[in-house]
Amino acid sequence: MKILIINGPNLNLLGKREPGIYGSSTFEDYLEKLREAYPDVVINYFQSNLEGGIVDTLHEAGYPGTIQPEREGEERPDGIILNAGAYTHTSVAIHDAIKAIPVPVIEVHISNVHQREDFRHHSFISPAAAGIIIGFGLESYRLAIDSFINRLK
Amino acid sequence: MKILIINGPNLNLLGKREPGIYGSSTFEDYLEKLREAYPDVVINYFQSNLEGGIVDTLHEAGYPGTIQPEREGEERPDGIILNAGAYTHTSVAIHDAIKAIPVPVIEVHISNVHQREDFRHHSFISPAAAGIIIGFGLESYRLAIDSFINRLK
Amino acid sequence: MKILIINGPNLNLLGKREPGIYGSSTFEDYLEKLREAYPDVVINYFQSNLEGGIVDTLHEAGYPGTIQPEREGEERPDGIILNAGAYTHTSVAIHDAIKAIPVPVIEVHISNVHQREDFRHHSFISPAAAGIIIGFGLESYRLAIDSFINRLK
Amino acid sequence: MKILIINGPNLNLLGKREPGIYGSSTFEDYLEKLREAYPDVVINYFQSNLEGGIVDTLHEAGYPGTIQPEREGEERPDGIILNAGAYTHTSVAIHDAIKAIPVPVIEVHISNVHQREDFRHHSFISPAAAGIIIGFGLESYRLAIDSFINRLK
Amino acid sequence: MKILIINGPNLNLLGKREPGIYGSSTFEDYLEKLREAYPDVVINYFQSNLEGGIVDTLHEAGYPGTIQPEREGEERPDGIILNAGAYTHTSVAIHDAIKAIPVPVIEVHISNVHQREDFRHHSFISPAAAGIIIGFGLESYRLAIDSFINRLK
Amino acid sequence: MKILIINGPNLNLLGKREPGIYGSSTFEDYLEKLREAYPDVVINYFQSNLEGGIVDTLHEAGYPGTIQPEREGEERPDGIILNAGAYTHTSVAIHDAIKAIPVPVIEVHISNVHQREDFRHHSFISPAAAGIIIGFGLESYRLAIDSFINRLK
Amino acid sequence: MKILIINGPNLNLLGKREPGIYGSSTFEDYLEKLREAYPDVVINYFQSNLEGGIVDTLHEAGYPGTIQPEREGEERPDGIILNAGAYTHTSVAIHDAIKAIPVPVIEVHISNVHQREDFRHHSFISPAAAGIIIGFGLESYRLAIDSFINRLK
Amino acid sequence: MKILIINGPNLNLLGKREPGIYGSSTFEDYLEKLREAYPDVVINYFQSNLEGGIVDTLHEAGYPGTIQPEREGEERPDGIILNAGAYTHTSVAIHDAIKAIPVPVIEVHISNVHQREDFRHHSFISPAAAGIIIGFGLESYRLAIDSFINRLK
Amino acid sequence: MKILIINGPNLNLLGKREPGIYGSSTFEDYLEKLREAYPDVVINYFQSNLEGGIVDTLHEAGYPGTIQPEREGEERPDGIILNAGAYTHTSVAIHDAIKAIPVPVIEVHISNVHQREDFRHHSFISPAAAGIIIGFGLESYRLAIDSFINRLK
Amino acid sequence: MKILIINGPNLNLLGKREPGIYGSSTFEDYLEKLREAYPDVVINYFQSNLEGGIVDTLHEAGYPGTIQPEREGEERPDGIILNAGAYTHTSVAIHDAIKAIPVPVIEVHISNVHQREDFRHHSFISPAAAGIIIGFGLESYRLAIDSFINRLK
Amino acid sequence: MKILIINGPNLNLLGKREPGIYGSSTFEDYLEKLREAYPDVVINYFQSNLEGGIVDTLHEAGYPGTIQPEREGEERPDGIILNAGAYTHTSVAIHDAIKAIPVPVIEVHISNVHQREDFRHHSFISPAAAGIIIGFGLESYRLAIDSFINRLK
Amino acid sequence: MKILIINGPNLNLLGKREPGIYGSSTFEDYLEKLREAYPDVVINYFQSNLEGGIVDTLHEAGYPGTIQPEREGEERPDGIILNAGAYTHTSVAIHDAIKAIPVPVIEVHISNVHQREDFRHHSFISPAAAGIIIGFGLESYRLAIDSFINRLK
Repeated sequence: MKILIINGPNLNLLGKREPGIYGSSTFEDYLEKLREAYPDVVINYFQSNLEGGIVDTLHEAGYPGTIQPEREGEERPDGIILNAGAYTHTSVAIHDAIKAIPVPVIEVHISNVHQREDFRHHSFISPAAAGIIIGFGLESYRLAIDSFINRLK
Repeated sequence: MKILIINGPNLNLLGKREPGIYGSSTFEDYLEKLREAYPDVVINYFQSNLEGGIVDTLHEAGYPGTIQPEREGEERPDGIILNAGAYTHTSVAIHDAIKAIPVPVIEVHISNVHQREDFRHHSFISPAAAGIIIGFGLESYRLAIDSFINRLK
Repeated sequence: MKILIINGPNLNLLGKREPGIYGSSTFEDYLEKLREAYPDVVINYFQSNLEGGIVDTLHEAGYPGTIQPEREGEERPDGIILNAGAYTHTSVAIHDAIKAIPVPVIEVHISNVHQREDFRHHSFISPAAAGIIIGFGLESYRLAIDSFINRLK
Repeated sequence: MKILIINGPNLNLLGKREPGIYGSSTFEDYLEKLREAYPDVVINYFQSNLEGGIVDTLHEAGYPGTIQPEREGEERPDGIILNAGAYTHTSVAIHDAIKAIPVPVIEVHISNVHQREDFRHHSFISPAAAGIIIGFGLESYRLAIDSFINRLK
Repeated sequence: MKILIINGPNLNLLGKREPGIYGSSTFEDYLEKLREAYPDVVINYFQSNLEGGIVDTLHEAGYPGTIQPEREGEERPDGIILNAGAYTHTSVAIHDAIKAIPVPVIEVHISNVHQREDFRHHSFISPAAAGIIIGFGLESYRLAIDSFINRLK
Repeated sequence: MKILIINGPNLNLLGKREPGIYGSSTFEDYLEKLREAYPDVVINYFQSNLEGGIVDTLHEAGYPGTIQPEREGEERPDGIILNAGAYTHTSVAIHDAIKAIPVPVIEVHISNVHQREDFRHHSFISPAAAGIIIGFGLESYRLAIDSFINRLK
Repeated sequence: MKILIINGPNLNLLGKREPGIYGSSTFEDYLEKLREAYPDVVINYFQSNLEGGIVDTLHEAGYPGTIQPEREGEERPDGIILNAGAYTHTSVAIHDAIKAIPVPVIEVHISNVHQREDFRHHSFISPAAAGIIIGFGLESYRLAIDSFINRLK
Repeated sequence: MKILIINGPNLNLLGKREPGIYGSSTFEDYLEKLREAYPDVVINYFQSNLEGGIVDTLHEAGYPGTIQPEREGEERPDGIILNAGAYTHTSVAIHDAIKAIPVPVIEVHISNVHQREDFRHHSFISPAAAGIIIGFGLESYRLAIDSFINRLK
Repeated sequence: MKILIINGPNLNLLGKREPGIYGSSTFEDYLEKLREAYPDVVINYFQSNLEGGIVDTLHEAGYPGTIQPEREGEERPDGIILNAGAYTHTSVAIHDAIKAIPVPVIEVHISNVHQREDFRHHSFISPAAAGIIIGFGLESYRLAIDSFINRLK
Repeated sequence: MKILIINGPNLNLLGKREPGIYGSSTFEDYLEKLREAYPDVVINYFQSNLEGGIVDTLHEAGYPGTIQPEREGEERPDGIILNAGAYTHTSVAIHDAIKAIPVPVIEVHISNVHQREDFRHHSFISPAAAGIIIGFGLESYRLAIDSFINRLK
Repeated sequence: MKILIINGPNLNLLGKREPGIYGSSTFEDYLEKLREAYPDVVINYFQSNLEGGIVDTLHEAGYPGTIQPEREGEERPDGIILNAGAYTHTSVAIHDAIKAIPVPVIEVHISNVHQREDFRHHSFISPAAAGIIIGFGLESYRLAIDSFINRLK
Repeated sequence: MKILIINGPNLNLLGKREPGIYGSSTFEDYLEKLREAYPDVVINYFQSNLEGGIVDTLHEAGYPGTIQPEREGEERPDGIILNAGAYTHTSVAIHDAIKAIPVPVIEVHISNVHQREDFRHHSFISPAAAGIIIGFGLESYRLAIDSFINRLK
């Protein structure tokens, strides 16, 4: 099984940002643990602070070769795990990209966005998502992988 | 590990309601499969169409004996999985009950509520929940159990 | 023909409440007149102040035996007349219950709710109802029965 | 008994519009059936696509001779059945006209407007109406006549 | 003088919930102190987590025997003190019940609801209440009793 | 000086409607008094229940001959007094017509619309009006004439 | 006849403010012209930039001696003309003061407030006013005096 | 090809209204140029200041003979170009009429309505239109004809 | 114990305003009764129609000498009872003043503001108040004093 | 004549996305047809999924060399056709860029956005556009070119 | 150069209010430091808790002698620094006063109002201000003086 | 001291855009003047039309090396001056980036955004900013530098 994890803006700071509080392990460290835990799953990872970069990556995943012509003919991932960060609340473009591709996309959030500012309570991603997992810390990603494995069975 | 699943209004109709479409297996059937899949987890189940009945059950889980005095002294469950159904969108009382008890509550929904009517887009449960899982069909419950197992590790 | 009338909260006070003004005849008195006027129609009646009680009754009507197992196998009513009272304006649970059962439900109101407070202008029942009759006093129920008779012809 | 039925904009297309779907019988055909069913009731009928035309007709009904001076002295109808169509949602003028005349006006709708677009959920007619009947198809008119007969008894 | 205190959802947890913080004395303990302080006042107490249970109790208080027929003929209380808890913000049914009974109802809240979440700033109880007392801790109940005593003088 | 008074929907019922309350004098009677009081002012009068009829009349006043070609070349009135009745609150078309003609239009209302329903608090006429007079009963018209006389001086 | 004119905040700058544009005549100059035009009317004048100052003046006019005890026993004015300026849009206190006194108050505005910023479209004065005159420049005051003279006749 | 152009309220003033600014050529002049430019297209034209007049015309175009029985049997136009003017923003009746007829209707506006007042930003016509062309001056009509020609090819 | 009562705008008219209805006793009369009832409590009283006057008085109470330097060194009152009248609904300045002083302030209202106009349903005072008492008539003040006495015990 | 077409996010998927439904011809294919149809018009094309990429391209078109210095001195296009896709509804930055450049920009949409989700009904592009064309399928682009040709004539 | 600093309600408490937290230095102390730092600038200071007092002071600054006739003929300040405190959010009167005077007014705030309650996010002062400085503590005033010095250069 | 100035979309056009009006000096010209005026301050400058580009730059400033690994170990600037242009009103991503880095960010705007369109009145930057300076033209940047110098002292 092949999974693509896409992280949106500011999620690249994990491990750098206030290590006294957030710990000094980065998302890449966590990724390694995930890969160990799921040896049969190929987990690819992409992070971008650009809304359009996330749209591009979704296109490329759904139709390999669209953005990087040399990948034409490659296989699609079986599922995408998307933490769109702040773009969750503002991006119609990502909403449209999810709807345009034939790969199921699961929306995840590390924190419980409903306990934070009002502008984080609305998601443009949710109506387009195949499933939504919120507030389990980094384990939200693990649950998303579990759900793709369940789905395959 | 001990888990309590609470289902809210109308979820008792699964299996009865239009079996041609929804299948004739009830939530109880699904429950059996869950118990088989997690032999080490004690899974209790409660369903009610009454808002106050759900509040009562949350209290009893958090402080055994509160509602049924004969249970005084029993152990709390390690986690609660709550699908509050329609009360998700209208019940401040359940919100308060979740906050009042020392057991983590995970909010689950079978369907993707964000693809349905506007009045299903707001949840009073979410700000009080320890985690939120939406739209994976009945497998939403399984993921919630996984998350409690992850948490224990 | 078999009709079930369901009355919601506070409608049990008819005849008790300020008899000098509202008269001392109860809804049960009115029911008797209805039954006399429609000798060929079996009219059952249920009243509850509990939102969940109304949900239960709708389930039982739609799938006899669901709530009271001993009624398993009984026949469904041909139609339901529902005056949900105050729950009209707040209950998503009753909305869902109506949609879940294979019996047509007609929404009735005794008074013209659109001449009263703002919070009575919105109904969660209406989008799920097979028809809506408002403001004819107790005769609203009679019109609802007429409509079921028309429908059968 | 004398009843006046007033139909608002676009209701004149019944029977013309997509006869394959809506059937080829017009409102006039239905009217004939109504008159047969109620041989003791004089049923007059008026249709207009003009908001002001409906206001005029309400005036003329309430105060015969107001608009057509030659009708001065004629008798008022006992009741009016008004399907204001699209003007239901936009016309304060019709609201005022209903309030200004001493004839009870019952608001009817063929379809369940609460299952359609948001802008059809608000009615300027309702707060001025003597009763409201929604969603019974053409039978909504019949129920309205029944209600006037009940009222007379 | 006879007073009925009605407490809504979650107020039964006082004394159980985080005793390190809230203390281990229950509402029943406080009630005892109140009864000692007002020896001439009969203070009855009812708590329910069910919206409809509160409606029932208000009916029974206003028209003894309505719900429990064996109480037919008993005397009404002189006043009701209602802390509807979470139902304060969502219940039209309780609003209607208060308006339907001939006993004055005083709304009380232990905490200052206007310092909490936005959804606690609106009360459906207030427009129907004979008086409102907010934010004095448990002493809110004592002030309500004082007000009934003042009223009698 | 030449003044045109335009009255909108339902204002034709003055004198007919509940004469016990509103008196039996019509707007025409009042007009006569106005003409006596202002012998040097030519006062023309037009009433219509049609939104488009009012638009037509404003056009004809601003550009004589536009609607009735035989009036081509006639003189414009010096001012228009418009009581648009219910169309005040709903008509963008009248707003546009006022802006399109080179004759000042004064908005008048007999009653104080701000003491009535919410939907009467907004006026589409006001932003286009040369002045606004509200709530002086029929004397609102007299004040409007006074204002045109002041203006000429 | 005795009239009191009350001007609110910033209206004292007339004549001072950009005299090249607004002219160099002050409100006092205009007042003189009014007094000449109405020799039989006693016109008193008060201006304040303080909300509470306007409330005080309304009280004193309604109940002479309330604020200035030495005026106890003086006669009330027959009418008040109030241009509350910016307080029109924000002052509930002035609204209440108008309702509390037995003297009719006419609201006037020099400019057409409905052609200006959104926050000037709502008036707290209007629902309490005996009449409203807007947008005739300084002549708004003259029309208000005319209305009091009409009223007396 | 046969095209019907329908213009709504106030559009009849073109050429009359401030000719110094808008020019003295009327819509009829422009129409002539259009007809010259498209010799193979029959272009009919209708203007009305009445909402109901526009509804009537749409019906007549969709079902010839509906309003003018003598036209029964005539052919429908291939397309309708509708500039509903002010009714764009307020008319549900025209919305419904467009949906009821089997002729495509293109919405046009001369000016860019999105650069004008807020109440011109919403259109009831748009959701029912086959296409929308805004802000090209009178050339908006020409583009609409082009689109019908494209469609036929 | 020392208590300061502050009354806001229009409350000075009690006893003057329509004595036939409200009675001819003033707030000062009521104050006297209060002082008799609580001989051990020093009750000071201040009334102002000025928002800023109430702010000043709150400052002076919290920090004696701030506004009237000669009072420097005097003792603070133990509690303040504030009926801010109309400023309740509009004054952020009073809200801030309450928060800035180290004296508890109890908000009182004579009437039940939730049964009056919409703009009286929101209070800027409530989130800053130590307690809120609404709708007990003048007895609201007595209950506030009771609450300060309870607090001291 | 020189025209620049700019397409926003997700429009690059045309022809790739569900070819069974949308056809397998890409926007580039359509472009070729356009170029054949308008041999005298130079049509350049740019697509980006990045909001800032569209801003850059608008700058470069308006002030050649701004972004790509080597293009300094090149000629501006005569017009720009912009389908901003999802950014239509969220991008103030593109709004500002259009206003900042001296080239007219026509907004086009392939589908009728007013028949889709609510969040697609508002456009930040419209108030800055020289014209708007919506809902003609790919022919929307052709009409935009026609409009530029009309404009030149 | 001559600068006038105006402080609104509650800002007089600086140094008095919780000196343990806010320090015991008053605004006057800070003023002294400012005067030392800008020896060539005459800095006048005014504080009031009255909305109308601030309006008066703005008038007097813009047109010396308006309020205090003895100051007639004095020079205007070169700039005004206004911290309107709570009136920032509620005062249309101050907005108007700023617009009425020929002296530039800079709005300052000590704290970052956008990090506080919702009702502090809107300012009536901002649209009338010559510049806005927020959140630099007391240094906000210093920056405002710098800006006036920059402006003069 | 080291300062980083970040300019958002469209601010690169200064000097190019309508030089007759805005002048032909670019932001770079202004920057040179700033550097001359503050010889002891290192002023770096970055402009981007990409939202994600601004996020990247904030990250790189807060944690050198995050985006450009070769800068690992460089020193952070002492302060950032951010004019996010249009992204001010739409970007949650930049809001989050500011909160994630340990460098104070001051929000500046050249024009007074509160005098422009409604959609420019809300800022997502403000709640995250260390200070806000609006409407001083290019001098807004100078004041921001002054504030950093003040802060250091």
